[in-house]
Amino acid sequence: MIRVAIIGASGYTGAESIKIILGHSEAKVTYLTALPEECGKVEEVFPQFKGRCDMPIEPLDLGRLSDVADVALCCLPHKVSMGFVPKLLDAGVKVIDFSADYRLKNAAIYEKYYGTKHTDTANLKKAAFGLPELFREQIKGKNLIANPGCFPTGMLLATAPLLKEGLIETDSIIDNAVTGASGAGKNPSAKFHFPNMNENIFAYGIGTHRHTPEMEQIAGEIAGKDVQILFQPHVGAFDRGILSSVYCQPKGRVSSEQLLKLYNDFYADEPFVQIRKDPPGVKDVAGTNYCHILPASIKGKIVCFSVIDNLVKGASGQAIQNMNIIFGLDETLGLK
Amino acid sequence: MIRVAIIGASGYTGAESIKIILGHSEAKVTYLTALPEECGKVEEVFPQFKGRCDMPIEPLDLGRLSDVADVALCCLPHKVSMGFVPKLLDAGVKVIDFSADYRLKNAAIYEKYYGTKHTDTANLKKAAFGLPELFREQIKGKNLIANPGCFPTGMLLATAPLLKEGLIETDSIIDNAVTGASGAGKNPSAKFHFPNMNENIFAYGIGTHRHTPEMEQIAGEIAGKDVQILFQPHVGAFDRGILSSVYCQPKGRVSSEQLLKLYNDFYADEPFVQIRKDPPGVKDVAGTNYCHILPASIKGKIVCFSVIDNLVKGASGQAIQNMNIIFGLDETLGLK
Amino acid sequence: MIRVAIIGASGYTGAESIKIILGHSEAKVTYLTALPEECGKVEEVFPQFKGRCDMPIEPLDLGRLSDVADVALCCLPHKVSMGFVPKLLDAGVKVIDFSADYRLKNAAIYEKYYGTKHTDTANLKKAAFGLPELFREQIKGKNLIANPGCFPTGMLLATAPLLKEGLIETDSIIDNAVTGASGAGKNPSAKFHFPNMNENIFAYGIGTHRHTPEMEQIAGEIAGKDVQILFQPHVGAFDRGILSSVYCQPKGRVSSEQLLKLYNDFYADEPFVQIRKDPPGVKDVAGTNYCHILPASIKGKIVCFSVIDNLVKGASGQAIQNMNIIFGLDETLGLK
Amino acid sequence: MIRVAIIGASGYTGAESIKIILGHSEAKVTYLTALPEECGKVEEVFPQFKGRCDMPIEPLDLGRLSDVADVALCCLPHKVSMGFVPKLLDAGVKVIDFSADYRLKNAAIYEKYYGTKHTDTANLKKAAFGLPELFREQIKGKNLIANPGCFPTGMLLATAPLLKEGLIETDSIIDNAVTGASGAGKNPSAKFHFPNMNENIFAYGIGTHRHTPEMEQIAGEIAGKDVQILFQPHVGAFDRGILSSVYCQPKGRVSSEQLLKLYNDFYADEPFVQIRKDPPGVKDVAGTNYCHILPASIKGKIVCFSVIDNLVKGASGQAIQNMNIIFGLDETLGLK
Repeated sequence: MIRVAIIGASGYTGAESIKIILGHSEAKVTYLTALPEECGKVEEVFPQFKGRCDMPIEPLDLGRLSDVADVALCCLPHKVSMGFVPKLLDAGVKVIDFSADYRLKNAAIYEKYYGTKHTDTANLKKAAFGLPELFREQIKGKNLIANPGCFPTGMLLATAPLLKEGLIETDSIIDNAVTGASGAGKNPSAKFHFPNMNENIFAYGIGTHRHTPEMEQIAGEIAGKDVQILFQPHVGAFDRGILSSVYCQPKGRVSSEQLLKLYNDFYADEPFVQIRKDPPGVKDVAGTNYCHILPASIKGKIVCFSVIDNLVKGASGQAIQNMNIIFGLDETLGLK
Repeated sequence: MIRVAIIGASGYTGAESIKIILGHSEAKVTYLTALPEECGKVEEVFPQFKGRCDMPIEPLDLGRLSDVADVALCCLPHKVSMGFVPKLLDAGVKVIDFSADYRLKNAAIYEKYYGTKHTDTANLKKAAFGLPELFREQIKGKNLIANPGCFPTGMLLATAPLLKEGLIETDSIIDNAVTGASGAGKNPSAKFHFPNMNENIFAYGIGTHRHTPEMEQIAGEIAGKDVQILFQPHVGAFDRGILSSVYCQPKGRVSSEQLLKLYNDFYADEPFVQIRKDPPGVKDVAGTNYCHILPASIKGKIVCFSVIDNLVKGASGQAIQNMNIIFGLDETLGLK
Repeated sequence: MIRVAIIGASGYTGAESIKIILGHSEAKVTYLTALPEECGKVEEVFPQFKGRCDMPIEPLDLGRLSDVADVALCCLPHKVSMGFVPKLLDAGVKVIDFSADYRLKNAAIYEKYYGTKHTDTANLKKAAFGLPELFREQIKGKNLIANPGCFPTGMLLATAPLLKEGLIETDSIIDNAVTGASGAGKNPSAKFHFPNMNENIFAYGIGTHRHTPEMEQIAGEIAGKDVQILFQPHVGAFDRGILSSVYCQPKGRVSSEQLLKLYNDFYADEPFVQIRKDPPGVKDVAGTNYCHILPASIKGKIVCFSVIDNLVKGASGQAIQNMNIIFGLDETLGLK
Repeated sequence: MIRVAIIGASGYTGAESIKIILGHSEAKVTYLTALPEECGKVEEVFPQFKGRCDMPIEPLDLGRLSDVADVALCCLPHKVSMGFVPKLLDAGVKVIDFSADYRLKNAAIYEKYYGTKHTDTANLKKAAFGLPELFREQIKGKNLIANPGCFPTGMLLATAPLLKEGLIETDSIIDNAVTGASGAGKNPSAKFHFPNMNENIFAYGIGTHRHTPEMEQIAGEIAGKDVQILFQPHVGAFDRGILSSVYCQPKGRVSSEQLLKLYNDFYADEPFVQIRKDPPGVKDVAGTNYCHILPASIKGKIVCFSVIDNLVKGASGQAIQNMNIIFGLDETLGLK
């Protein structure tokens, strides 16, 4: 039984991780930590766990961590995480980090987008990018996994077959994505105040979203060349899900039928990626670790539609998929 | 043309008032005020007014008010309002006050529920309760109107015919009400954070809601005797509306048909109250000043269902209906 | 491994049952049936099962059922179910029936509310009412379980301690309930057309809802005397959940603290019933088999608020809880 | 007072037209028609009009139309409309047609997309395209206006300044649009059944949406050359609004500041088009005839975000704006 600590358990991805592990036959939560002011019984922070998980959320004690956990799901914010991850690793646990701190291999790009120097470049080099469908072999045996961002997960799964096969121009990809409001986290704000957000949809992060360099780095690795992506996020009035509509310029003519065959072959052995013949909706994957994709040829472009649950395949589910891999378990445990 | 000042224009009822007056043929907004930190162009506070209302929201200047306005819609919070209303009246404008400060005739009850001494009992005595369908004659000619609370409006219109005719026991009324989330106002909070409120419904204010004494006072006036009401509010995941399901114990047998006739007769001349034969939904009145009511006889009780828009008939629309009355205009101007 | 057939797998409760069993360590779905016109691969009917459950939904073949299943979850409509249940039992499987056909012990009341003669009174006598928290001992060892209605589940759990202890007048219970729209089933209709239902809430089934006699029968069994319930359902613009606000007249004075103690004691050993100190929301239990309850003393009445997920504790989850019981498994398997 | 008939009054655009005209000081509804099976009192079809509009909806009588109306808002479906419009014109009324039947000047393209021969090419030639911000002079004095489609309205207003000034490549425009569910009309269907549509967003009409040729024709007129548009609609779980995110390839470098200046100048005199500096949300224009636009320079592309209410600026509001123009009224009457 894998013993799991959740560092930063008071947020949405912490809660989703607890929920998934409650249904996991080979893992159990043994330690929940948060900032002192956010501690308390889980059920006080998240009433949905009353009677299901009666543990306290406590301030982090690294000695305790060593004793009770095999792996830490580190749900801390960007920039905070890299201050803790070295200590977690030193405590002898494997770490799956939810922040962006170990995703961008180029520390200069990290500094440009996050406005601060990277303070743990040693571990940065050792971390694997935790998108199993594309990097399973690199993930195996690692002690530190950089769990991908939610938007990059949806965008990269949607386009990997095209990038890998060199079918599209790599300087002209447009990712028009819509996320549910849980993506904004649990802190109240005017934009996400119910009377403002309900019945609404709007763009944000115009020209500046931090997931752009992550997408470009990984897409570049897949394509074996530089990739330029115009990533434009929007937020809609629903709880969960990301719909990515990705527009690509093909190098030659390709039909929708050829695309379907390509995608079905590419993902034939992937349990969590399903190729659809009709447009997928975010509700089709809500609460699951699945990604549904429809590729289509439209007016001389290739348009790929993908849907994931931002809190599951876009965060906690993918983290547990990674955990299953690094502990040598069936990758789908707790996630079917 | 009636010149309208809105005091406290930066909240939802201020915005709704501006919107209604934009479509009013005999009134115009001439002055918008708020706390200094909430001032700015209207369109900066409420983007929906861009190009429709290009006025600034400014700190209140009583001298300026005298010069530019005939009436003030006072949208300040409870307890704050009574500090300003005497000054507004002294400035020579009529006042329609949205707070509870001039609704409760018994200052002792006010103090019990609001935890502070009433500081303007002189004007409290002069104020009319602004529910035109029940108190039109008292409203006419008044300089100060206490605009009713949203829940009392829905509950009182739903039961007035029964109370007036003495058909029900007055010690056993239960008002189970559900409001939309705009009722919580514009300040972000955890409960109304979209990911918490969306897809949710729950009770609040258990045993303590401040609208209870208001309902009991007015219901008592209508019935001519003491009335006891168990008022239980809930909030649901929709923007606008209050559904009141009011359970009453009849003194004798009464059929649904008799109730429909009673209600149709009672409200025959009321433009904004409509008696339905089927259950009304809050969406049927959203964005309007209407109240739809279905009374029914069920298992020996009388159950009355009423719906209003909490921001219109429950606040700004009713205020403008009152304004129309005190200025001798057609009561429905701007509200059809 | 328990082999589960789902009869009527093309509706929402069928889909929810499949989903729960996918995560159940001691059960697996072996047979899915529906009317011929609703058959096909599961993923064609419910895209969320693509890659998770690749079985066909087929017309029912009783011989096949005998061979492949130990238990049938019978998700057929009222009145249809009693035509099939005897055949399912004859095929040698245990049956958990989701319809009302085996809930009302008095066939005359059944005929009054369902407008047809009961055609299987022999099995009606043998069926247990599948609310484990109240009737666990009767459920054990039975071959036929009448899975409770969603509204009765919420109402009965909310009031059972009061009824059992004889603390309330049994002629005056009011259950004001609000269900999510999934309660209406999967067939499109004008009322549940998104633009009509969204942002709406309204009452329905005024004076006629068929869950009333079920509530009264079971509440009467618990209380040991006749119980009269005014049950008024409403439907709100959310997918899942039932909020029941139940108003009772206590025989004597009782404080909220006494109520909390009573409820905590009564449900101390029940994993799926949790007593709250604050008002529960339907979102707290969405997707789970839990029921959260807050009892309170308000203005001389007792008001009990309960929330369940109508598709889980109100249908498929409770069915699987019953299945666990009759097969001697840990009652919470697949449901934590 | 302009006398308005609404032909096809039983749908959402009919209802929205009635609502707008109720607040119009120089127009009144005098005749409502629909197919015989959809007739009845307005309030029976749309409860929100109870007490506000007590007219019947009747089968169309052309003689009656002549007597009582000056203009017909023809809200009939595509292909049906062209069978009625000649008769309406012959009856002596001006016609504003909501269907696509008079929008596509090239009858061959019409036949390709609508699968039927155009039967009224004579009037097709005489019709003006009713997008006042771009074609005001052509609209004046016309007897037949083709009211634009909702998606074309949002897309064309978003890009007109770029097309007019020749700033973008015209072979590479991508319009990624999201509409609210009211765009699907009032007939129930599985996709728009509340439990399916709620909490969902998905693409539809992949590669085939009929608004594409309309966009291309009008964009071509504005640009003075052929324009190719990849238009991809999506539908989200909200009632009203269209968010268009339009991606364009500029011919040269242009900054966001230059774009803002260009747009502010281009639309300086347009009451209903407002240029924003922050991303507009559909809620900012819900219930209004306004279009809010943000143009931005992002990674070498120009991205224009526009929002409208699909039922107002995308249908009934724009129709009444057109009506105001052809009758020589202030264009904003009833629409501020």
